[in-house]
Amino acid sequence: MQRIKCVISYDGSEFSGYQVQPNGRTVQEEIEKALQKMSKGNPIRITASGRTDAGVHAKGQVFHYDTELEIPEDRWKKAINTLLPPDIRVLEIEKVSSSFHARFDVREKTYKYFVDVQEDIDIFKRKYAYHYPYPLDLDEMSKACELLQGEHDFTAFCAANSGVKGDKIRTIYQAHIKCTGNQIVFTFTGSGFLYNMVRILVGTLLEIGVGKRRASDILSIIESKDRNNAGKTAPAHGLYLWKVRYEEKNEKQRVRV
Amino acid sequence: MQRIKCVISYDGSEFSGYQVQPNGRTVQEEIEKALQKMSKGNPIRITASGRTDAGVHAKGQVFHYDTELEIPEDRWKKAINTLLPPDIRVLEIEKVSSSFHARFDVREKTYKYFVDVQEDIDIFKRKYAYHYPYPLDLDEMSKACELLQGEHDFTAFCAANSGVKGDKIRTIYQAHIKCTGNQIVFTFTGSGFLYNMVRILVGTLLEIGVGKRRASDILSIIESKDRNNAGKTAPAHGLYLWKVRYEEKNEKQRVRV
Repeated sequence: MQRIKCVISYDGSEFSGYQVQPNGRTVQEEIEKALQKMSKGNPIRITASGRTDAGVHAKGQVFHYDTELEIPEDRWKKAINTLLPPDIRVLEIEKVSSSFHARFDVREKTYKYFVDVQEDIDIFKRKYAYHYPYPLDLDEMSKACELLQGEHDFTAFCAANSGVKGDKIRTIYQAHIKCTGNQIVFTFTGSGFLYNMVRILVGTLLEIGVGKRRASDILSIIESKDRNNAGKTAPAHGLYLWKVRYEEKNEKQRVRV
Repeated sequence: MQRIKCVISYDGSEFSGYQVQPNGRTVQEEIEKALQKMSKGNPIRITASGRTDAGVHAKGQVFHYDTELEIPEDRWKKAINTLLPPDIRVLEIEKVSSSFHARFDVREKTYKYFVDVQEDIDIFKRKYAYHYPYPLDLDEMSKACELLQGEHDFTAFCAANSGVKGDKIRTIYQAHIKCTGNQIVFTFTGSGFLYNMVRILVGTLLEIGVGKRRASDILSIIESKDRNNAGKTAPAHGLYLWKVRYEEKNEKQRVRV
């Protein structure tokens, strides 16, 4: 039995999210179907770094699974990509130690959020960036980003119906904003993120950007631990799970397929 | 009665082309439906600068139509965009002289063609660029572009089943290639283009890029006036009708709405 680690990209537009559910097309289901075909009908269960919601995209989602299938190494990626629908692509495949776990071993995750700020929506970005055509105070937003960095109890930035168990203390290593032309990109790197956390962070930062709130409000929102005090949840289609990093041990143990 | 000139963008992915046809969703049909709603049910017929095929995009298609409707000028664009589906957007609207004609008055058109040359397809571009992951000789392709410029009989670059009436002499004012990262953009500006002409030009230039043909072959292909001597027709989804320019008289006569 061999454990395989897989990095994938998907366009979330036509998925009801990552995780298998009774109704709606999901990323997990499409991948498991493809792997089952490769495994001559044997069902395969995959384990991802975490879920993504309906409409959320991925540039570097990671999952693992176990297989007894022996496929010549250079053909593996091509073989599975042939079986996958055009909105999911395998980017990297590698054999890893059987101790590697795509969810438990996550060291940090990076999310990006794209905002299209031009007056007329760019229809080619309509599924890939949030159209928010208002003048934004980027300096104030950047100050707020700095305040978000570090270890905090992010209860106020977690969806009220999250069902998250355990504490809501997370560490944001980096939160920053980059503006290029008509596009603003938010980048968040952290130890982990709560349900809807990035989208609520972006919604709150945009409200700071248009002057509804001030950067310093971030501290009192965090302290309040009350979701009602944070901003709106920004829509799913601007969000990308960008990169998942793992413990060094797995980096060393892995063997490129 | 007032003549209106309209510049629109559309994502061709989910259209069976521009022109109304018995089966399939078309750009023209969606716009005429929206205008009919605005005109209290009176049917409106629009006239575009030309057709685009299924899957072809537009960043600056132009059409005109006549209306007796009086709408406050600043509300017109917003009103129609509210009625249009999300894959068509009106970018500019202006009242023009009744002598303006969106097709007959075309002075020049610009098309762009996007090619994604990275090894792994970028799934977010899969409907918006042609994935062609082969090393390309850009110098040789640029030489070929220079040879295409000027007035030529482009019969060899016109789809055999085009039904084009009249001569096939056209003038290409500018043909060039720009490479940025993993993306190559072809730009063609000319007096007019034959059916499938840009896609056949791109297909031929890519064959020059991979060394199947040489730049100098362009001249003999043109001279042959035989479609069989040119390259393959590149797929529709990389192509954008980018800009349509009109005679100066209309530029002067127009009144911004």
